Amino acid sequence: MAHRLDPLLNPRSIAIIGASDNPGRIGGMPIDLLTRFGYAGAIHPVNPKYATVFGLPCHASVEALPDGIDLAVLAIGAAEVTPMLERCHARGIRAAIVYAAGFAEAGAEGAALQAVLEDFAQRSGMVVAGPNCMGFANLNQNAYTAFASVFKTAPQQQERGTVSLLTQSGNVCAAVFAIARELGVPFSHFINTGNEASLDFAEYLEYLAQDADTDVILGYIEELRDGQRFIQAASACAAADKPLILFKAGETEKGREAVRSHTSALAGNQQIYRAAFAQLNVIECQDFAQMAHLAELARYRQRSAGKRVAIVSISGAVGAILADKCIGRGLEVPTLPAAIQDTLRAGIPDYGMVSNPVDVTGNVVNDPGFVRTALAALATTDAVDTVIVYAPGYLLDRMADDLVATAAAHARLIVAVDTGRATCRDKLRRHGVPVMTDIGMTVETLAPFLQWHDRRRRQPWQALQGRDTLRASNGVPALPLPCNELDARNYLSAHGVPGIAERIATSAEAAVDAATALGFPVALKILSADVPHKTEAGGVRLRLADADAVRTAYGEILASVARHAPDARIDGVLVQAMAAGGVELIVGAVDDPVFGPALTVGLGGVLTELYRDVSHRLLPVDETVAHAMLRELKAFPLLDGFRNAPPGDVPAACQAIAAFSQAVLGLRGTAREVEINPLLVRPLDHGVAMLDALVVPHEGHA
Amino acid sequence: MAHRLDPLLNPRSIAIIGASDNPGRIGGMPIDLLTRFGYAGAIHPVNPKYATVFGLPCHASVEALPDGIDLAVLAIGAAEVTPMLERCHARGIRAAIVYAAGFAEAGAEGAALQAVLEDFAQRSGMVVAGPNCMGFANLNQNAYTAFASVFKTAPQQQERGTVSLLTQSGNVCAAVFAIARELGVPFSHFINTGNEASLDFAEYLEYLAQDADTDVILGYIEELRDGQRFIQAASACAAADKPLILFKAGETEKGREAVRSHTSALAGNQQIYRAAFAQLNVIECQDFAQMAHLAELARYRQRSAGKRVAIVSISGAVGAILADKCIGRGLEVPTLPAAIQDTLRAGIPDYGMVSNPVDVTGNVVNDPGFVRTALAALATTDAVDTVIVYAPGYLLDRMADDLVATAAAHARLIVAVDTGRATCRDKLRRHGVPVMTDIGMTVETLAPFLQWHDRRRRQPWQALQGRDTLRASNGVPALPLPCNELDARNYLSAHGVPGIAERIATSAEAAVDAATALGFPVALKILSADVPHKTEAGGVRLRLADADAVRTAYGEILASVARHAPDARIDGVLVQAMAAGGVELIVGAVDDPVFGPALTVGLGGVLTELYRDVSHRLLPVDETVAHAMLRELKAFPLLDGFRNAPPGDVPAACQAIAAFSQAVLGLRGTAREVEINPLLVRPLDHGVAMLDALVVPHEGHA
Repeated sequence: MAHRLDPLLNPRSIAIIGASDNPGRIGGMPIDLLTRFGYAGAIHPVNPKYATVFGLPCHASVEALPDGIDLAVLAIGAAEVTPMLERCHARGIRAAIVYAAGFAEAGAEGAALQAVLEDFAQRSGMVVAGPNCMGFANLNQNAYTAFASVFKTAPQQQERGTVSLLTQSGNVCAAVFAIARELGVPFSHFINTGNEASLDFAEYLEYLAQDADTDVILGYIEELRDGQRFIQAASACAAADKPLILFKAGETEKGREAVRSHTSALAGNQQIYRAAFAQLNVIECQDFAQMAHLAELARYRQRSAGKRVAIVSISGAVGAILADKCIGRGLEVPTLPAAIQDTLRAGIPDYGMVSNPVDVTGNVVNDPGFVRTALAALATTDAVDTVIVYAPGYLLDRMADDLVATAAAHARLIVAVDTGRATCRDKLRRHGVPVMTDIGMTVETLAPFLQWHDRRRRQPWQALQGRDTLRASNGVPALPLPCNELDARNYLSAHGVPGIAERIATSAEAAVDAATALGFPVALKILSADVPHKTEAGGVRLRLADADAVRTAYGEILASVARHAPDARIDGVLVQAMAAGGVELIVGAVDDPVFGPALTVGLGGVLTELYRDVSHRLLPVDETVAHAMLRELKAFPLLDGFRNAPPGDVPAACQAIAAFSQAVLGLRGTAREVEINPLLVRPLDHGVAMLDALVVPHEGHA
Repeated sequence: MAHRLDPLLNPRSIAIIGASDNPGRIGGMPIDLLTRFGYAGAIHPVNPKYATVFGLPCHASVEALPDGIDLAVLAIGAAEVTPMLERCHARGIRAAIVYAAGFAEAGAEGAALQAVLEDFAQRSGMVVAGPNCMGFANLNQNAYTAFASVFKTAPQQQERGTVSLLTQSGNVCAAVFAIARELGVPFSHFINTGNEASLDFAEYLEYLAQDADTDVILGYIEELRDGQRFIQAASACAAADKPLILFKAGETEKGREAVRSHTSALAGNQQIYRAAFAQLNVIECQDFAQMAHLAELARYRQRSAGKRVAIVSISGAVGAILADKCIGRGLEVPTLPAAIQDTLRAGIPDYGMVSNPVDVTGNVVNDPGFVRTALAALATTDAVDTVIVYAPGYLLDRMADDLVATAAAHARLIVAVDTGRATCRDKLRRHGVPVMTDIGMTVETLAPFLQWHDRRRRQPWQALQGRDTLRASNGVPALPLPCNELDARNYLSAHGVPGIAERIATSAEAAVDAATALGFPVALKILSADVPHKTEAGGVRLRLADADAVRTAYGEILASVARHAPDARIDGVLVQAMAAGGVELIVGAVDDPVFGPALTVGLGGVLTELYRDVSHRLLPVDETVAHAMLRELKAFPLLDGFRNAPPGDVPAACQAIAAFSQAVLGLRGTAREVEINPLLVRPLDHGVAMLDALVVPHEGHA
């Protein structure tokens, strides 16, 4: 089945426009690579200055080319690009790669050039990659259209490539390729997207999701231009059981600044990227070496695995270190069942350990029968999902046959770790046992990989399907914006978020009456769509114990707000019963520029900001997801009976969060930000109450 | 100057008792290594079964050996060890290494054997290493007394070794050695301490601190047996400007459990280890590869360096990634001064970046004159301390001469990062420019190394000198233990920790009178040395607003305490003025089994426990250190005017913490734990107040 990007990524013939016979120049390097590695398709250099290039006949112009060429590589200056694309298109060339810099990344003039290019691509339907990109390589076809010396310096690959590399930086593409090739990772596609004027990251990802030559995808992202399309493409990868391993730059403000200065894309929130990755079961990386090792490990993904790990080591020290690292990265190292410990104890000296980590001691390799028994026990017990075996050098060699036999007999993933120079590494790898060579990298790789396994079973990406068309659908009338706090809370209440007893007062005496009816103590809050930050404006008074206090507070609130916001329209003062007891949450949503509506949950109060203890998800969020979000909070024990406090009404909180999620979908396109702060969580069976809420409109709706 | 450990670590002659001619056996491997690598001293195999071993005459017994042998290596079973040591000692052999397992790590019987060995070593003064150790190697002398195959498989070293390796695990010793040798790190001593029956980690460290062959020390610790001696030895390393790079296992409970099961040492608190390391300017590692890379980097320690980093990259993406990683690890990436930016802008294309990270773009290598100008500017500006240059493969090669010239002209540390296969790596290293080959490892190594540089200037270890003999010396009478809360607070107040207005009441009416005198609201608290956990016993009531509330609370407290602790001796009920406003801290001290008195500061309240937001230091702690501790807290902004709140009286808090430190020194040997909870920090110029305090006696003083 032909794909729109086939002429680009799997071309049958290639024209190089601006061809050179100097392999060090961008017009020469792809021809050097194509001829050197034996590309089977036709190669057509184009340059009026040469008769031949690398021994190939050189055409004087695009017009002199034969018909039916798949791909043109443009090694020419920025100003000449779009006119040349038009000529290529006129010749029936279906796709083009634009190397030239000097477009959107280079000021207003370049941005104008890029707009012309985008317009042409859109009108013509021609597939145009770049500009400002390093190009591509289809390693299985030897179709090199990149100017990247790494193909000449990295170890050549013999086997068929199954791993594709998709990055927004040519230098990162080359660096990851170099590291992964040293490990023996075999590549299919090498893709550098450049400025993504017409073809964006998500569209390449769609291609790789359906590409028969791609089993595993490594990617590097600075900013996504189309978050929703990315969600669809990443879901397609998940559905096709292709691990998607991504590194997203811009972790710190300084890093984001640097990223922004060479991408023209909208900056999304890094935490929301992280949430989206988790929901899409993307394996998030922070390092090139980690990416390369994950690509290697992902080749063993059909073995059964999960987060409960048995650690077997010939060294008590290394076993302890591995346990520390595994637990530190979120894996579990459960104590083994007594029956398994008995089996192990039969062959392990007294000074060894059998509980997990298992210290078999160096002596055990002299007893291969026992090694096989022990491995079989760990490969079959229900207590763990994955086995790590540490034995350096000749000690691993002595266990190699037993590892191979165990891997042949049982589906469970067994990872060998060799910090020496074992000769059995290749043999183990061929027989289904990955071999790592560094303690730290073992866990940095295994932890996200095993998390991928766990999420793969739960399929969280399913909840995001059809998300772009989701709307609130429970008949609640639309909320006109801007709105005051009461309107905001009424809207959320109509979706099912519980409120609290309250009255509106427009005089001090009415406030006293309301407070008497509600019961003291009460809170007073200014009610105005024009005063979003009520506390800062002196518009909030809490814990008013009697009528005098209410009367005084009423006057003070109006006076203070009049000072802070003289032009604000005042709808009155809210009198609320003061809620006593319970834990306060913040529940908020933003319309992220990349991913659209996303939800954040955290503990209320100043410390949440200092400790950044919050959980994020793309909408929609149902009660199950809400529960998972609350459990992710470090402060969750406060809701769960910490230090003999009564447990909070977590089920009611989850219902309220799910109702909030629905309400936010109803504000799509109009609200930039929606927040309940605080949502009071009372003790179990006593429900929750929204004490305050805020809806901030988008610019166009303010 | 001869050192007591010279015969062990730098022996002129070696006897191997239990010698074998099989290089695979522990009695054969050291002889194989000694002869293979050309040890210049005398080698004396001892075994009645052989006439010769590895071509050397074999002695029938220790008694048949010549006089004056430095070192005996005992490759014999546990039960024979001490009798053999006695015979060796009788022959004038000064030191011995005991390989045998089966001592303290192996149950009661082994522990008894070890006690006999320890007793012999103590009585005789013989230097006895092990038992249960893998042995040693003096690489510069080719004096191999270890059974470790790694010496045969790791790359041979040609240059003189300057890095020593000191570990509590033979397997870790071998693994780190193997990794570091691949990097070309040249070793002097390879030391594996084993059970440390008679020679402990700190004593070896003392040796290395004064050893002319040791410039850098790599170590691995499971548990220290003598924390105070370690402090002295580590201080000696710092004074000698020898970086001490340590990995401490036992980060998680599971890891500590695994460590405990094969060490017989007392388990200290991992957080206090970390505090001690920071105060001693130990470079703390979490990984073998990181240790090896740090050993390499430490060779460049005489270059000037610090935490403010300039990042120069041929790739905007990699520059952003490096900035993210540096900042994430506590380094600073300051924006460069305008004058420097102007200098850079002169040679960098528009699409590059000049602020920091600096993106020089790939084109810049074609302009070597500019590269040298740019490097010189960054090597001399006061705005940064260290320069990182990323350029892979041939791009780095093109910059190599400029890097060498810059390093020759300026003392500032410049670190090159090559993810390609640059041919200039060795040349750069020889000329003072370290070359890293992995982005992640660059920062994982550089961050702790630059922190070491910063601490080296501040010399925090100086404050710990003479610590073992420190006592409180301000004439405050000793505190008899156990004591009630009031006694505890009075003792701390006498050292200068401010208290709060309060009275003791022994009847409800006396409590009401006291409250009236102090002013409402008040707090009531049971006063008894036998009720350390007052809240849990129902012995505390807060915010009592009037006489009735006090009267009722008095009765309830006595009733509740009578139920919870019927045998407790009650000294009365404390009536305290309720402090309003301010931030609450916890200030605590423990007598750590390894390091002795150590202080902890954190924010008061339940969240401190959940977020583990605390700072630790070994005593003594003065006001400057107290200030640094407070600043380390993530919650510090609460003391510093967060969100327009009034800033807290941090100077008064620091004075109180320093006074607390003095008071704790006065409780040395008697108190296991001392705590102020809370210490109320009022707004600036309003001081602090100790609201509650607790002294928990050591077992012997309860």
